[in-house]
This record gives sequence, C-alpha cells and structure tokens, in this order.
Amino acid sequence: MVVHFKRMTVIGLGLIGSSVIRAVRKYGLVEELLGVDISEGVCEVVRGWGILDYVGVDIEYGVRGTDLVMLCTPLSTYRDLVSRVCPLLGEGAIITDVGSVKKYVIESFTGYSGMGFCVVPGHPVAGTEYSGPEFGYAELFEGRWCILTPDYELSDVVSVERLVGFWEGMGSRVELMDAVHHDMVLALMSHLPHLIAYTIVGTARDMEGGMGSEFLKYAAGGFRDFTRIASSDPVMWRDIFLYNKEAVLGMLQCFSEDLTVLQRAIRWGEGETLYEYFKRTRVIRRRLIEIGQE
Amino acid sequence: MVVHFKRMTVIGLGLIGSSVIRAVRKYGLVEELLGVDISEGVCEVVRGWGILDYVGVDIEYGVRGTDLVMLCTPLSTYRDLVSRVCPLLGEGAIITDVGSVKKYVIESFTGYSGMGFCVVPGHPVAGTEYSGPEFGYAELFEGRWCILTPDYELSDVVSVERLVGFWEGMGSRVELMDAVHHDMVLALMSHLPHLIAYTIVGTARDMEGGMGSEFLKYAAGGFRDFTRIASSDPVMWRDIFLYNKEAVLGMLQCFSEDLTVLQRAIRWGEGETLYEYFKRTRVIRRRLIEIGQE
Repeated sequence: MVVHFKRMTVIGLGLIGSSVIRAVRKYGLVEELLGVDISEGVCEVVRGWGILDYVGVDIEYGVRGTDLVMLCTPLSTYRDLVSRVCPLLGEGAIITDVGSVKKYVIESFTGYSGMGFCVVPGHPVAGTEYSGPEFGYAELFEGRWCILTPDYELSDVVSVERLVGFWEGMGSRVELMDAVHHDMVLALMSHLPHLIAYTIVGTARDMEGGMGSEFLKYAAGGFRDFTRIASSDPVMWRDIFLYNKEAVLGMLQCFSEDLTVLQRAIRWGEGETLYEYFKRTRVIRRRLIEIGQE
Repeated sequence: MVVHFKRMTVIGLGLIGSSVIRAVRKYGLVEELLGVDISEGVCEVVRGWGILDYVGVDIEYGVRGTDLVMLCTPLSTYRDLVSRVCPLLGEGAIITDVGSVKKYVIESFTGYSGMGFCVVPGHPVAGTEYSGPEFGYAELFEGRWCILTPDYELSDVVSVERLVGFWEGMGSRVELMDAVHHDMVLALMSHLPHLIAYTIVGTARDMEGGMGSEFLKYAAGGFRDFTRIASSDPVMWRDIFLYNKEAVLGMLQCFSEDLTVLQRAIRWGEGETLYEYFKRTRVIRRRLIEIGQE
C-alpha cells in the first residue's frame, strides 16, 4: 500500500463518490479521508460504514487543509462548488472530478488559475445503472479506464502524475486526453447510446396504453438491455446532455442520417443495403473482443 | 419424458434449429428426429453430434412421412420452402416455424389450407448474438416465452394444443397471440432496438477514421451493449425488417418523434424536459423487475 495523499476530501457520496472512498480505504491510498454531501440522509448512510474521518454537510470544514478534493456531484453543481471550494484550497492542493464531460469542467475553473492549487479534470469510465451510496463498491474502477484531461493553464505535470498514480492505485488504467477530444469520444461511446436508450424506453412507455402492459413480457428480444441503460440517474444524465451539447448534437446528427438511410431501405425493400450495413457492424464487435473490452 | 411426436423434422440447423434438436433430445420429446440444412458443412457439424436419425441436404427425404416440420431458416426462404414441403406433408401433420415475424408467415401459406395438414406459426423469444449450429444449446428456451399465432384458416385446436405441450416440454412458457399484434409487440420490443443498435454501431464504425480506433477502448460507457445486439445474424435481421416493414416503420416513426423532442430540449437547454423524460423511463425498468423479466 502506497499513501498518495495525506488528506483527501470527496464531495458527493453517490454511486461514484462512495465507490471512491471504499476503494481508497481498501488500497490505503490516503491517510485522512473526508466526505461531504448535501444530503444529511446520504451522510448518515456513509457514516454508518465507519470508514471516513469526517462525514457531513459542512463543505468548509471538509475542504480546508486538504490535499486532494474530488468532485463527485452532477455537473450542474460545479460552478457553485468551484466558487466555494477554491478559496479554501491551500498551496499545492489538487482539485479533480469524475464528471463525464470535460471541456465544461475546465471552463468552470476559468479565473482560478495561478492561485497555488492545481486542477486536473478526470473521468473514470465506470458506473452502473444504480444511484446512491448503497450501491458503491471498491472494485468499481478495477480494470476500467480513467481519462484525465489536463489543461495547460490549470494543471501541472507533477500533480497530473500524482493523480495518475492514485487512479492506478484503485486498479484503473489511466489515459491522458485533450478535453475536447474526450467529449467527442464519450459523446459517441456513452452519451449518444444513453440518449437513444432513454428515447426508446420512453417510446415504449407511451405505447403501454395502446398495447397493454403485457408486451413487456417479451423484453428479452433486445429491449431489456436498453432499459438497464435508461434507468441511470436522471439528474446526472440531464447534466451530461446539457453540458456536452455540441458534441452530442453532432453525433446525434450522424446517427439520424444513418437511421434515415436504413429506414428508407426498409421502406423500399432494399435488402442488399440492410445486409451490407448489418454485416459491417460485426467488425466492431470483433475489434472490441480483440482489445479485451468484451 | 413425454413423447409428443413420432417423427419430427427440423429444417435449418443454425443457432435456433440446433438448439431445438438438442432440447428435443434432452427432454425426449420425439421418437425419430431428422435435420435438413442447405449447407453440407452445417450438416457435417451436426452429424458429428450423433443425435439425429438423419442429417442432410435432401429436403424430400427429410420431410416425407414426418409428423412435425419446424422451419428454422431466414424468412426469405419461406415461400420456396412452403411450396416444396407442403405437397409432401401427410394427413394430420403439423408445420410450424420459429420466425420473428408472423403475419408474413401466415401469408406464405395462402392457398395451402384444407390440405390435411395444419399450420401453426410460432416464435420462441430467445436467441443469442451468435449464429451457427456450434452455438446452439438445449437450455436456450428454458423460462423464455414462445408465442404461437394460430390462424383460423390454417390451424386447428388440437394441433395448437400439441405444439403448446411440445414447447412447454422444452421449458418454454407459451402464449397464444394474434399475428398482427405479435408483429407490433415484437417491432417495439425487439426489431426497433436491433435496428437502432445496428445504426449506432454503424455510425461509430464510420467515425473510426476521424477519431482513431482507440475510441473503442471506452465502449464500457454504454456502447458495448449495442455492439452485442448489432452482431446478430445479418441475413436473419435483413429479413425481419423487410417482412415486418409496416410495424417497424410505424414504431420507428414514434421513436424518431421522441428523439426529436429530446434533441430540441438539448439544443435549447431545456433541462426540465430531459429530467422528466429520463425519470419516467425508470418506471419501465421497475416493472420488468416486478414481472421477473430482469
């Protein structure tokens, strides 16, 4: 066990935040570990585990004198949190986050460079469809990618390296990436799939009246996978779409064009177009298996 | 073990056909079991298992004198198969199938009523993303729904009841349904999800040039579920979309409208619209869990 930070504060103790504190304790990555959450109910749950040195709603107490702050809250809270947390950070402290959108995070820190602390935006590509501290677990990040998107004005090399080591300590594989590129890649690999899953499950929900709810019995035909994706936290996902608007709308446009092509092929009975399209998508699956992502 | 039929012939020994013959043998549902496939290579694989009384490409030999014929081939083969198989069927024989579209199947038998044999279209809502006999297994239908869609001109009550017992013998739960209703329900629960999964995986494939193939590393963010669905057999799915055109296009229209609403909400930053939509989709997931489909 290697201690990476003397004192760490996690803000937001939902699925990700609670998994971080469990992992940090499991691997002994910090000496003192503090947790802050806006909800007294959430604090009480986490307090019951007895693994934190402080759990409570007092953000000022939680942050002052800490070496590493990790924001694990929805993106819409960042502006407010940044303005409250940053003035409390000491020389050499690091502030990071786990948000699924990264360019917006960098923008949230505009005006806070050169103040002695360092900002290293981060995104562990891990999660489940459940929300809340009771679903967190220490192994959530094991073998999963964590993407850090340093900014040349906000981040310094030493702090980035420390954070790389910290995530590796939780079992993650770490990748450094430009924030704009991150937002593009995730728009395609995660945000668009979620939007589409939400849509189709919503479409089905609206049909219940006309079809009788018995149709859900046949969800095994493919629909079921979508319901799992579409049961993810609605606040978190609302924020992702709002704060990664450009990339998501761009990807959605490409998707819609492709869907229209297939729709037209179905309407006019162009089997060859459908067959060729379906055949080529298998390649992607094979590649996932090759790179060990399946 | 209850013997349901003296002699049965399975035509098409892919994933479903090979699972049927394995299940039939496991549960001892018939005395004599014959398999026919257009591919000599497939026949050779299945012959190696030594569980059939005949395996070969000779459809006439396979079908003559049999009590139950089950078509397990793509929908586009039905017209030809029907015209070749039906004249060989004796008094009291039953012909059924496992296709994912049912109104078209009934249409395929137009002109073949009152000839002494009985047609009972069927659809086991089961499968995997793999194709070919090597992936079949006897337990594929256990606990899964099998939908039969009898037609008042083609089917008789006794034959339907025999087929219900047969599928129950393989561990399925059987439901009788109107063919048109079946095609609507499956368009929503299975065909539309597959079309959308194929589309988004295709969209991603086309982006590989621009993004660098490294983006696939982050498939765990939600995309991965789609690649599994989109690696299903391209011929089978081409046929499903062509032969369930009206229902699929209707569902797709509903989906597109819903997606456009969400797209607009993202563009104009209408968080409340997104949140409310995402919150309601969770209900469907809960209902699936309640009815034991998850």
